[in-house]
Amino acid sequence: MGVGMAGSGTSSLGDGIVARIDRLAEISETPEHLARIFLTPEHRAAADLLLAWMREAGMSAHLDAIGNVCGRYEGDRPGLPCLMLGSHFDTVRDAGKWDGPLGLITAICCVADLHRRGRRLPFAVEVVGFADEEGVRFASTLLGSRAVAGTFDESVLGAKDRNGLSMRDALVKFGLDPQHIGAAARVRRELLAYVELHIEQGPVLEAEHLAVGAVTAIAGATRLAVRLTGMAGHAGTVPMALRRDALTGAAACITAIEEFCRTDPDGLVGTVGYIHAMPGATNVIPGQVSFTIDIRAPTDPHRKLAVADIVRRIEAIARERQLALQIDVTHENRTVPCAPWLKAQVSEAIAAGGYRVYELPSGAGHDGMAMIDIADVAMIFVRCRGGISHHPDEHVDAADADAGARVLLRMIENFRPL
Amino acid sequence: MGVGMAGSGTSSLGDGIVARIDRLAEISETPEHLARIFLTPEHRAAADLLLAWMREAGMSAHLDAIGNVCGRYEGDRPGLPCLMLGSHFDTVRDAGKWDGPLGLITAICCVADLHRRGRRLPFAVEVVGFADEEGVRFASTLLGSRAVAGTFDESVLGAKDRNGLSMRDALVKFGLDPQHIGAAARVRRELLAYVELHIEQGPVLEAEHLAVGAVTAIAGATRLAVRLTGMAGHAGTVPMALRRDALTGAAACITAIEEFCRTDPDGLVGTVGYIHAMPGATNVIPGQVSFTIDIRAPTDPHRKLAVADIVRRIEAIARERQLALQIDVTHENRTVPCAPWLKAQVSEAIAAGGYRVYELPSGAGHDGMAMIDIADVAMIFVRCRGGISHHPDEHVDAADADAGARVLLRMIENFRPL
Repeated sequence: MGVGMAGSGTSSLGDGIVARIDRLAEISETPEHLARIFLTPEHRAAADLLLAWMREAGMSAHLDAIGNVCGRYEGDRPGLPCLMLGSHFDTVRDAGKWDGPLGLITAICCVADLHRRGRRLPFAVEVVGFADEEGVRFASTLLGSRAVAGTFDESVLGAKDRNGLSMRDALVKFGLDPQHIGAAARVRRELLAYVELHIEQGPVLEAEHLAVGAVTAIAGATRLAVRLTGMAGHAGTVPMALRRDALTGAAACITAIEEFCRTDPDGLVGTVGYIHAMPGATNVIPGQVSFTIDIRAPTDPHRKLAVADIVRRIEAIARERQLALQIDVTHENRTVPCAPWLKAQVSEAIAAGGYRVYELPSGAGHDGMAMIDIADVAMIFVRCRGGISHHPDEHVDAADADAGARVLLRMIENFRPL
Repeated sequence: MGVGMAGSGTSSLGDGIVARIDRLAEISETPEHLARIFLTPEHRAAADLLLAWMREAGMSAHLDAIGNVCGRYEGDRPGLPCLMLGSHFDTVRDAGKWDGPLGLITAICCVADLHRRGRRLPFAVEVVGFADEEGVRFASTLLGSRAVAGTFDESVLGAKDRNGLSMRDALVKFGLDPQHIGAAARVRRELLAYVELHIEQGPVLEAEHLAVGAVTAIAGATRLAVRLTGMAGHAGTVPMALRRDALTGAAACITAIEEFCRTDPDGLVGTVGYIHAMPGATNVIPGQVSFTIDIRAPTDPHRKLAVADIVRRIEAIARERQLALQIDVTHENRTVPCAPWLKAQVSEAIAAGGYRVYELPSGAGHDGMAMIDIADVAMIFVRCRGGISHHPDEHVDAADADAGARVLLRMIENFRPL
């Protein structure tokens, strides 16, 4: 799908991308389960490979102070501000091979295509491969893009991995200087925009039969921890009318959350992913239940209203059932809207490629959440099979990788700064 | 309450019972947490104390082939068939002191009262203290009463405790002969009836402001293991309409079970005590959920109809939500009805004591479930505070213990065999 429809004379972008995705996926902690973790030998090996590909594509390239790979393709004269493209090359454990690398490798392949044709633009193009987006090792995400955005929090240098090694010591061991992470920071005047291509990690484009989509915003998220306390009791001896069952109360809450989100017309999602009932025996009425709620929406006001409404419903359920209630906010991420002027250029490139323009929010977090601090942000989503991600079954068809690359390439070639 | 209302001249039965409950509770694996487990030194020490109390009460007494304590108070001539009273003296771990011992000690105190007054009846009275009802050590309940009923399953002799010691070896170590458990068995013609007094272990009598109640039946139970399988997914990227969330499906099932049981007019109870959602992460839609259901009703047909109806509702929920469903029956216990003629004599004794006659089913299991095989069964329930049982907070007021004892004593003195 889409092969040969883009303006470039090259028709095999997709195949080249897939070959490099496969090559990069060989760099893993273990051969059975893909894992490429921040500041490990796999990080080093992947960075070396990516830097080589960048140079092959006509870029000057270097490893920055946090371990990101940074390539620069000059414009029609040296030193121009850049259109920055990027994504991450670290993975979760037992990962798929597309989450992150697809955007990074596609960007490199697009620059390689410009280079092959000797095409120079009235701006530079930079490609950044972020060394840590997933936050697997130090339980702190977006380390690579935060360093580039100049918002790296030095206090996380003390965070330790599961072997007790601090990030500070891991950086030194990797050959980097924790004192100089600030050197990775870029400033707003150097960037015209930040554009990231990424697999959708959801099933929407597949359901719409579309290879690509334009992202409206990276949804903010609120996470709540809820505890309901009733009265444990013998499953045989306490009549229904005398029970204060914390689990039937939790079930009512879960149903209320689902119903509230289902009837929202604007992309609100709410998930209870974890639940624990105590004491947890077959023949004992649960006296206490803990569960989590994850709520996301394309705008902050929308999410905040939804959180308040859901909390009110839970309070009503607890009151009606005489359950004690504790709710704590454990996590809160603002929404990062894609800049309308930049998203319009993504949509133009999609339409020019012959695709229906479809806009959707990103429910997952991305490096754009950090990059927004120094640049306007846009994202292109590429369809993935079954919406599966963070799993070895994660898959993108070569034709869809090609479609994504052609949209990105067209967008670069037609880019007009604000 | 009720002190001095019974026919006997003795007004301090309750205090005597409480003193012995406290004395027996001193025999525990650890002083902090009451635990008296089958075939342990605590079993031996408790049996010695109980046998001494039986002899003091005018009974001949012996330890039987499974470790039960058996006392016999002859009727107006030797060798008459008996009215058998009993309960168990093993406990769960971190137990209350009333569950089991109240019925056993009350029975001994009633016989002691007859003995003190030189009262002989036209039948013998036997008191049995069952050595294992809870089944803590070998995960098999009612071992003591099954041995007496002649239904002891020899295959459980191979069952091992948490230290790997088999029941066979534990019996030998205790000084009993596993070859001769059959010697504990009694036969139907030796028994006129089996009557057990027990704490309610539920909140019904307290809610009714009654010290005692007459049990209608020991409710049978069906336990089901349910597994719902949908599709795991990212909490941010999968829109509500495209989800196959196993936990929202489970919540719908839990709500349906509660609603179905709540609207049943005849004492049906249904409990989901255990639930596990996988993968169990805050930001992942649960792909699979396992939970248990425990369903009890005062009659078998009632319970079986309810189980079938609940299963149909769960099947409909799974179908509607496109979840794969597996339901297994993991446990099935028949209902043991209390014999109407015997229950009538319990009710008579309650009424004669000046109490409102209140009938209720037993949701918990009791030794009568085994004894039904050789005798008609009745039970007297005594109020316990807050319905709490299997917990150190388990409590019975001395006045209620007294009320129970006076009902039992009156029932014994007025007993007419069928």
